[in-house]
Formats: sequence, structure tokens, C-alpha cells
Amino acid sequence: MRDTSLPIARRIAERVHAFGRGDLTPLSLAQARRAITDTVGVALAGAVDEGVRILRETPGVADGPGPALIWGTDRRTGLLDAALVNAAAAHALDYDDVCAVLGGHPSAPLVPALFAIAEARGLPGIEVILAHVIGVETTLRIARAVNFHHYDKGWHPTATLGVFGAAAAASRLLGLSVEETATALGLAASLSAGLKANFGTMTKPLHVGQCSRNGVFAALLAGRGFTANPAAFEHPQGFLAVFNGAGTFDAERIFAAWGAPWEIEDPTMAIKQFPCCASAQPAILMALDLRAKDGVRAADVAEIQVMPHVRRLRHTDYPDPQSPLQAKFSVQYGVARALNDGAIGLADFEGEAFREPEIQRLLAATETFAHPDMPEDGAAQWGAEVVVTLADGRRFARRVDNVVGRGGDHPMSDREMWAKFADCARRSLPEARIAPLFDALGGLDTIPDVARATALMAVSRTSETSWNR
Amino acid sequence: MRDTSLPIARRIAERVHAFGRGDLTPLSLAQARRAITDTVGVALAGAVDEGVRILRETPGVADGPGPALIWGTDRRTGLLDAALVNAAAAHALDYDDVCAVLGGHPSAPLVPALFAIAEARGLPGIEVILAHVIGVETTLRIARAVNFHHYDKGWHPTATLGVFGAAAAASRLLGLSVEETATALGLAASLSAGLKANFGTMTKPLHVGQCSRNGVFAALLAGRGFTANPAAFEHPQGFLAVFNGAGTFDAERIFAAWGAPWEIEDPTMAIKQFPCCASAQPAILMALDLRAKDGVRAADVAEIQVMPHVRRLRHTDYPDPQSPLQAKFSVQYGVARALNDGAIGLADFEGEAFREPEIQRLLAATETFAHPDMPEDGAAQWGAEVVVTLADGRRFARRVDNVVGRGGDHPMSDREMWAKFADCARRSLPEARIAPLFDALGGLDTIPDVARATALMAVSRTSETSWNR
Repeated sequence: MRDTSLPIARRIAERVHAFGRGDLTPLSLAQARRAITDTVGVALAGAVDEGVRILRETPGVADGPGPALIWGTDRRTGLLDAALVNAAAAHALDYDDVCAVLGGHPSAPLVPALFAIAEARGLPGIEVILAHVIGVETTLRIARAVNFHHYDKGWHPTATLGVFGAAAAASRLLGLSVEETATALGLAASLSAGLKANFGTMTKPLHVGQCSRNGVFAALLAGRGFTANPAAFEHPQGFLAVFNGAGTFDAERIFAAWGAPWEIEDPTMAIKQFPCCASAQPAILMALDLRAKDGVRAADVAEIQVMPHVRRLRHTDYPDPQSPLQAKFSVQYGVARALNDGAIGLADFEGEAFREPEIQRLLAATETFAHPDMPEDGAAQWGAEVVVTLADGRRFARRVDNVVGRGGDHPMSDREMWAKFADCARRSLPEARIAPLFDALGGLDTIPDVARATALMAVSRTSETSWNR
Repeated sequence: MRDTSLPIARRIAERVHAFGRGDLTPLSLAQARRAITDTVGVALAGAVDEGVRILRETPGVADGPGPALIWGTDRRTGLLDAALVNAAAAHALDYDDVCAVLGGHPSAPLVPALFAIAEARGLPGIEVILAHVIGVETTLRIARAVNFHHYDKGWHPTATLGVFGAAAAASRLLGLSVEETATALGLAASLSAGLKANFGTMTKPLHVGQCSRNGVFAALLAGRGFTANPAAFEHPQGFLAVFNGAGTFDAERIFAAWGAPWEIEDPTMAIKQFPCCASAQPAILMALDLRAKDGVRAADVAEIQVMPHVRRLRHTDYPDPQSPLQAKFSVQYGVARALNDGAIGLADFEGEAFREPEIQRLLAATETFAHPDMPEDGAAQWGAEVVVTLADGRRFARRVDNVVGRGGDHPMSDREMWAKFADCARRSLPEARIAPLFDALGGLDTIPDVARATALMAVSRTSETSWNR
């Protein structure tokens, strides 16, 4: 589209509005189905997280009537708070999908917002898939314009950029006009928030809940005649100048390759195999290889050197984690656990697991530093090397230069997808619901009403009395 | 307090927590009473604003049960949405109080939050006053650390800094511990949002509603065990570095003169006499002087030169406003209206008032530019000069170097306060309620339960059907 004289939000809105079933490729459809299934799974695990429980029980949150399910409960409420709580749950365990373009998690802000709207309007699954693909496109195209300065500066792009994807996708699913969609995007610029300083606390998943809620909020308001500036991206006191700053972005990158191919087909769109920070996972994979391929046994290990790419280390350097949440961000803990167990599961980041004596011994034997020959601004930024020295003096090293979760040319198998989904969903749902839900989500594009899938996620949580306050 | 080794949020929290009745000076008490009365008044006028009506009718907003009144309706809901809607109403007309330290509006984020909490807990008026004074202190001390870079960059400080005042004041009123209050402040850093690009749209008052809601949200969550980083201000990827940037703030200014005197006693804390952008008001006052003191009659005017201080002009330069909202930000319209009518009232920014032929003639005769000898970074930044040339060739000029609203050494009289309050409250309340409410708020420190005052603000709005959806 030759439309460079129009406001950026308007140009995005035209593309969001024009998108239709005919534009959906087989790969983008398959990627969306997997991303949505995985997001629902991790949200069902996150629904029992302490931070999400506090959020859900806070007076004024999700206690109004409405059509949208709080997943893993039997409570239905308005779209805004369903998006808030379910998106916080989807990110609570930091187990949701990731993308290197974003430096964050593309699906968690989208899926809860879209399911809430679809439930309220009785929409078919294919509409959610279309909205998801265009929401990912919006988030990631904007990310290409502002990253990695945006991320490095301290913003939490999952939230600060995800709000635009959520606003665009919600606008499409609600049937907003081009003008209204542009207003929603301009409004979303004023709701964008989230600092990396709060990584490692319950506030990080709250960012994602807020951004999902705010995306829906922007679309609902815009659809009712609320006003915002469609030039709020390029305005001298708008999103690009204020969040990024002059010389640190290129707005035309939003449009340079829109839909060619769809961002959801990007090889760095990846599902997380392990329930901890994505940046810790290259090192964990190397630790698993040391055990599985080199035969290293934890009991024999005397010293461990963990050398992630410098960008991976910055927020994963917790040599002595003091809580399950810190353990999730600790590359050292992930490596120790992988060497010790040969696997990483949800239970490893719960309770006192991080205090196990053998794990504590391995942590005390660990030295961590940024890898000396993985350049900060090189093309490959998801590398790590792990070197172990055994008590008998032997040394083993495993190194990978770039591995972002499980996507691109090394996707998770269907069996691995099911194993992760079941492990997650089991935290909230009765066993008999899990396979039918997995099947329903896997065929989401054929479901005539999304409520048919969400009905499988409704369960009574009798221990929670908050609904009666 | 010698506590520079502690996190900033913790140091603020200690001061918020330590504040008590014995610290309240007669002037800070009087200022708080007037600020609260004025904020309630402008919110009652804002309650019938189109943007606030859309907000209130959006599904999922204020439709849950709860103790807190949506002012000017008979609807009660949770604390969060009462703060959202009432704070948006308080700023909807841009008629709420201002402060040069902030470059914004200190009271609008606070009063709705505090009234909602006080109603829910049955608290006496004096507690609201104490929380208000400490909330203003928190917002303005942080403003001293980050302004005016923060404002000039494009943030909307009423919201981006007001969220901290709201979080601190709510924490105090809810009885949070020092640790919990520090958590609430760290959490608030991740909820801070609002861009000046959306000035002149309904999204500007929404910023204020969101920030009030988020301040209460941060305090409620922190009081229930939610976690955030108390070092979220000074963290390398925290509020100061990310929102402002290195070299553009001085965190110690937060503490340098905490409570000495209280910020609410600052001479630039001012109540707005006219219902339009504060930055337009120095020029409007000069136009009123030209009429009242120099005998200028609009019919005789051939040319008008409007020369605000450059910082006042940047967001008030609407030579040909096309909506009531643009008229509120148009220094040219304010000057024309003042010359024509000799007064400025709510009705002048409604409907088609800005299209009156004589006003259009005056606008067409107006030339506007930044004042050539009012330096951008001088001590006086609230100046303006207005020069009129009459058809007979005579010229009159009026100039003021610094006048921020009606505060400091030229406060509004009690009669002017009442006139403004009644003009505002009349938009929402029956006539018989207005004087009793004004009296109740004027004696807020003596009221045993704030609900006694809010009861006077509850009225049925039978034309609104949204509550039944």
C-alpha cells in the first residue's frame, strides 16, 4: 500500500482490517493453532500460581457479571478482567511462547483477549485464529521498528508492544472500522507500560495481564466513539519518540514486509519446552546434552562454568536463588537441575525444590560469566556454553550458538506438545477434560463457537471464597 | 532520615508511613480542604462529559458490586473502577487544580482513589486529608527529581507521576506496612503510562482515571502479598533510567526537603478559575484585563497578538479549533472569548459556542507566537502578553511574567470557590444538594465518615441504561 502520508496507526489499521481467510497460509494456520493450544495450557498451569490467585481475589477484579470465563474456575466476568486474569496466568510461569524478534512472548497478551471476545460474541474458532495471526503480525512488525533498543533500554516488550497486537486483534474480532481500529492503536500507545526492573517478581506477569486488558479496553472504547490520536506513534511526544527516542527506531520497518511472510511463521517463534526464563534455555539444553551425550553425572561434578550470550545473562544471573520465582530466572539453577535430573518440569520451580542439597552443592560449584566470544550485537544472540570439570579432573564442554526455544527447524513434536499441555492443564483441570480440550484446540479452526472449547476449562474452585465477598 | 543505602521506594514508604496528624500544618490542612472540594466539584461537572459517559457505559467497567460511588450516579462498585471513572471525570474538563512543579494536575488522581477507599472502610474525613497531603508530597517530590525533562520529553506527568502519589496515599489510607507501601510504589512504576501525543482527545482524562485506578490497584495488591521490586526506581532498567534517562534526573531531590514545607503549600499549587487548559490562562487573564481595565470592546478590535511563554504555547496553539475539546486547548479561543464576554464559563466550551460569528471574526484576526523575550528555561515560565489593535488604530498591551492559576499570593476567594463549585456541581446534582455538599467538604476534617459526604453525590441517572446490560 502506497500510503506513507497517512498516520502510522491508520496504516496498520488498514492492514488489520483488510486481512481475511484468503490470506491465511497453511503454515500460519498451523502455527496459530499450536501457539493458542500452548498458551491455554500454560495459562491453566498459571491459574493456580500464587500471584494469579492474589490478583483474582483482589476486590474489584473479575467480580462483575459477564460472559467471559476465568480459566480454571467456574467464574464468568467481563471481557476486561477475563483478559487481565487469564493473560497474567498465561505468563505467570514464564512458560509461554517466545520470539526473538520481540524479545518476549507474543501469544500471552492475545489469546486470553480473543477468547473472551469470542465467548461474548459466540464467534467461531477460525475468527480467533485470524485475529491471532494479525495480532502477532502487529506486535512483531512494531518490534522490528523499535528493537532491540526498546528491549535493551528496559521496557518489557511483551507488554509495551503486546498491547498494540492485543488492540489490533481485538479490533478485528470486534468488527471495528479502519478508523476505529486506528483510534484503538493510538489509545493503546497511552496504555503501554511495563519495566524490566520488575522481572523476577509477580509484577512481571501482571504486566502481561494489564496489556491484554488494555488492548481489549482500547478496542472497546474506540468502538464506542472514544477519541485518541491516530498519529500517537509518530507524534513528537508520541510512542516512538518517547519510549525509544530519536535515532533508535525506523517506523517504515513496520510496513516493509507486512505479511510477507506472516510474522507467526518466523523461525524464532518458539514454544518453550522448559518452565523457566527463555534466556536460560540454551544453557539448559547444553547441560542436558552433557548428561545425555557425554555421560556426565551430577555426583561427579566438581566445577561448572556457565557462559551464556551476554544478552541472555543480564536477567538470568541468580547464582543463589531464594524463591521459586528467582529459580525460574536463574540460569545457574536451570543448569544444575538439568545436570542433576536430566529433565526440567513444573515441579522443579515450586516449593523448596531449589533448596535440595545436591542442587545447592552444584550451585556453589558454579561460576557464571558472559561468553567471551559471542558478540553482543552479532546475528546469533541465543547461544551458551557450559563446561563441567569432574572430580577426577576430566572436562566436558557443550556449546550452541543460537537456539531460541523449540521452533523453526527444531519444533516440539506432537508428543512433546501433548506432554507439556497435559502437565500444565492437570494443575487446573480434571484428567478427563485434558485430552478433549487438547483436541478441541488442535481443531480450533473448525469449531463453530469458541465457547465449546472454553466450557472444558470451567471448573469449580471450592477453596476460593473470594467470589462471595 | 539518614537512609541513602535503602531503595528509593522504601525511603519514600518510610516517610509516607511516619506521617501523622501532628505533622499537618494549618496551611496544608486548608490547602487540602480546598483542593478536595474543588476536585469533587470539577468531577461532578465532568461526570456528564461524553468521554466519561462512554467509559462508564463500556461493558466490564464499574459493573461489579462494591462500596464506592460513581459520583453523580446512584451506582456503587469496586474501588478500582470507582477511582477509574471518578478520576477521569475529575480531569475530563481540564478544570482541576494544577501545580508548576508537576507540570500537571496533582489532585485528580488522588481524591477519587481516597474517597473510594474511605467509603469502603468507613473512614473519617481527616484520614482522607492526611492521605491527600502525603499523596501530593509523593507526586511532587518525585516531580522535582525528574522534571522538566520528564514533561518536555512527552510524558503526561499528571498520570506518569500521579500514579506514585495515588499508590502512596492509598497505601497509607489502607494501613499498609512500610514494606508493603514500598512494594506498592515499585509496582506502580510498572503501571505508569500516558503520552502527551493524546492531549486534546478523550484519552487524556483516561490517563488520569487509569493512574488513579492503578495507584489503588498497586496498594491493594501489595497489601495482599503481591511482590514487586522496591528498587524499581533506581534499577538500571527502572523508572528513572527508562522514563527519563541518564543525566536527566536527580533522585536525591525527592528527599532533600521532604515536608519542609509540605508540597501542598507550594505557591504554584493553584486552582483553575477557567475551564480550559492551564497554559492558556495567563493570556486569558491579560485579555480580561484589556477589557476590564483598558476598556477594550471586542467589536472595536481589528488585530490581536497572542504571545504566550514558549512552554505554554506548545500545546495550546489551536488557531482554528474544530471541537469543544480543541477549544479548551486553544489559547486563541480563550483570548477571543475573554475579550468578547469578559468572563469564561463551562458553557463556553460546549456545543457550538466556538463557532459564534463574532468569536470566529476575532480568531481570524489573531496572530500567535511564542513571546520573544520570555526565555524558555527562565525561572518564570507562566507568562503571556496580549496586544490588541483597534479599528481606529489605537493599541493596548497587557503582560504578565508568571501567573499559575489561582494560588500562592492570589488565591481564589471563598465566593469565587463557591461560584465555581456550584457551576460545576449543578451539571450532576439537584440544586438542593450543592450547598450542603460544599459545606461538608469544607469541613471534611471534622466528618466522622466520608460516606456522609458521598451520599450527597448519589443521584439516579435514569437515562443511562448501561447498568442493566
